[in-house]
Amino acid sequence: MTSELVASLIERNPDRWSAMRSFYDGASVMITGGMGFIGSNLAIVLAELNSSVALVDSMIPEYGGNSFNLEPVKGRVEVNISDIRDRSSMNFLVQGKDMIFNLAGTLSHIDSMNDPFTDLEINCASQLSILESCRKYNPSLKILFAGTRGQYGRTRKEPVTEDHLMRPVDVNGINNIAGESYHLLYNDVHGIRACSLRLANTFGPRHQMRHPRQGVLNWFIRQLIDGEKIRLYGTGEQIRDTNYVSDVVEAFLLAMMDARTNGHAFNIGGFPISLREFVETAIEENGGGEYEIIPFPEESMKIEIGDYIADYSRFQSLCGWTPRCAPREGIRRTLRYYREYREFYWGARNSAKRVLKPVGA
Amino acid sequence: MTSELVASLIERNPDRWSAMRSFYDGASVMITGGMGFIGSNLAIVLAELNSSVALVDSMIPEYGGNSFNLEPVKGRVEVNISDIRDRSSMNFLVQGKDMIFNLAGTLSHIDSMNDPFTDLEINCASQLSILESCRKYNPSLKILFAGTRGQYGRTRKEPVTEDHLMRPVDVNGINNIAGESYHLLYNDVHGIRACSLRLANTFGPRHQMRHPRQGVLNWFIRQLIDGEKIRLYGTGEQIRDTNYVSDVVEAFLLAMMDARTNGHAFNIGGFPISLREFVETAIEENGGGEYEIIPFPEESMKIEIGDYIADYSRFQSLCGWTPRCAPREGIRRTLRYYREYREFYWGARNSAKRVLKPVGA
Repeated sequence: MTSELVASLIERNPDRWSAMRSFYDGASVMITGGMGFIGSNLAIVLAELNSSVALVDSMIPEYGGNSFNLEPVKGRVEVNISDIRDRSSMNFLVQGKDMIFNLAGTLSHIDSMNDPFTDLEINCASQLSILESCRKYNPSLKILFAGTRGQYGRTRKEPVTEDHLMRPVDVNGINNIAGESYHLLYNDVHGIRACSLRLANTFGPRHQMRHPRQGVLNWFIRQLIDGEKIRLYGTGEQIRDTNYVSDVVEAFLLAMMDARTNGHAFNIGGFPISLREFVETAIEENGGGEYEIIPFPEESMKIEIGDYIADYSRFQSLCGWTPRCAPREGIRRTLRYYREYREFYWGARNSAKRVLKPVGA
Repeated sequence: MTSELVASLIERNPDRWSAMRSFYDGASVMITGGMGFIGSNLAIVLAELNSSVALVDSMIPEYGGNSFNLEPVKGRVEVNISDIRDRSSMNFLVQGKDMIFNLAGTLSHIDSMNDPFTDLEINCASQLSILESCRKYNPSLKILFAGTRGQYGRTRKEPVTEDHLMRPVDVNGINNIAGESYHLLYNDVHGIRACSLRLANTFGPRHQMRHPRQGVLNWFIRQLIDGEKIRLYGTGEQIRDTNYVSDVVEAFLLAMMDARTNGHAFNIGGFPISLREFVETAIEENGGGEYEIIPFPEESMKIEIGDYIADYSRFQSLCGWTPRCAPREGIRRTLRYYREYREFYWGARNSAKRVLKPVGA
């Protein structure tokens, strides 16, 4: 069974897929946050590439972990439930690994303002902790960090390069800067190869769908499926740089393979589009739906981050990566996935459960 | 009794001193790290300005706190020993204050690499903690943060403006970025007026003298007084931007007074000079001494930060601040202070002890 994700990676560049196969075949790969959105999509591809995949996830209820995400690779990946802040577990788990995709963390802007200490623990302290485990027990692996456009805060000029001033508008952005910086520092000083990809707005299958606080694009999809009216704040004209998850997975795979990424941070971007346009496209693909424009709630206004368009040319020219899946196609695939597996993501039976038919998204 | 520090502030600009008097007279001021180097010098001036001064210090042994530092204002300032990570103490202590000079923290680069978790606690988590106390119990105060040139890491181009890329070469620099960023964020989002001064190499009386890990300039002074040979790493030609402490104290006082600093970070700089030139000047002022140039120890080389010259024009043009005390004069005063009070800073009687004669440095 080859998933749609894997099929699209093969189709877009067969030569590159071959290169990936030879790099990842037999590799011992850890993914932190591996039951979550990007982590599980990555795990599915890595299993197809014949890596030995170990997932670590804390399964904190409000976060992204969902065991149904791994249904397509059930029994083909190892799962270890633990928190990356748990130093002794991590000291053990990093041993023998060739590489870590370090995706544990959260991106909730509002939560980080309401409970900044938890955000600090999860997104800052825990990153230092995993790096210390690597330094002590496996300094020869390579580790990739998932950064965020939230590190820049409100931007001065689009498109935004990696050298743009960083002035986050929420605690989460500050803690992600620290988390990324630890990785680059450990690369420079301790020789633990590391790099960071600063993600924009990623959407697609396997994102949690229980609340909108970790990504609004998937939330729109849920609202359409549920027949709810979508509410856009302000004008709806805010530009978001969107990526369908398969493009982001490919970026991570390429960044890990290339030694020239070591010690660097790269912007990832794709298709800049206004929220209104995203929603209108989604309504068309859904064959119906409604939205309204309402004023910003005060709490959201203060941390509204404004337009964002990534300049991803540094990563593109180094690794030959180009985002391919346009919003319309990504929306189509996302709608299809959640229409089929809705029960595993929200609603009455919001829990993982064995399904009999194969999962192919 | 007017200290040399106060006398020099009055002398350099009597009108400004009057403005300071009317601003600080009767103000309720907290200084975190108040028994330490800059905190105690600031406390002495604030007592002279007739503020009601409350000092908070954890007196962690390796850090800068020394009760002898407060000898000139004994009985005129309140001292509260507690750690700013202690949330319930801080929740209580911030109440009723008009302003906080938030100087608690440490700047040891080597320590931060050997024990990164402690550095995270002290320089990152604790800053979030004190800001949360302000948000909950006293959001109308103003708080100043002491940042560091270490936030920039190795610089690309001198002099360095505030918009220079930040790429620290040690954990301490990363945690200071987070600490500063929390302040600016709480200014923007929660309306707690805050600003940051990014200090370069400050030296002068009341710096701890038990080890060189929090500032090498004062360490050179100790070595000269002890008749030890000074060791410079590399070539000795590394440029440091030096400030005598009275200039830094004045900068903090001015930054607090001016509403236009709210929400901003400013470089503080003064007299860029090579370490070799600093040492040679100190040897002349000391009337003798020796130094040698030796290769970098490996541990230090990896986090050696290279030349640094601050562009402090943003703060200068906004607040009319200009550093006045050149290295030679600063060295002269520092030598005089520690020759007189050596016993309270290092050597056989390295503890606070009542002295009978007045302290006037």
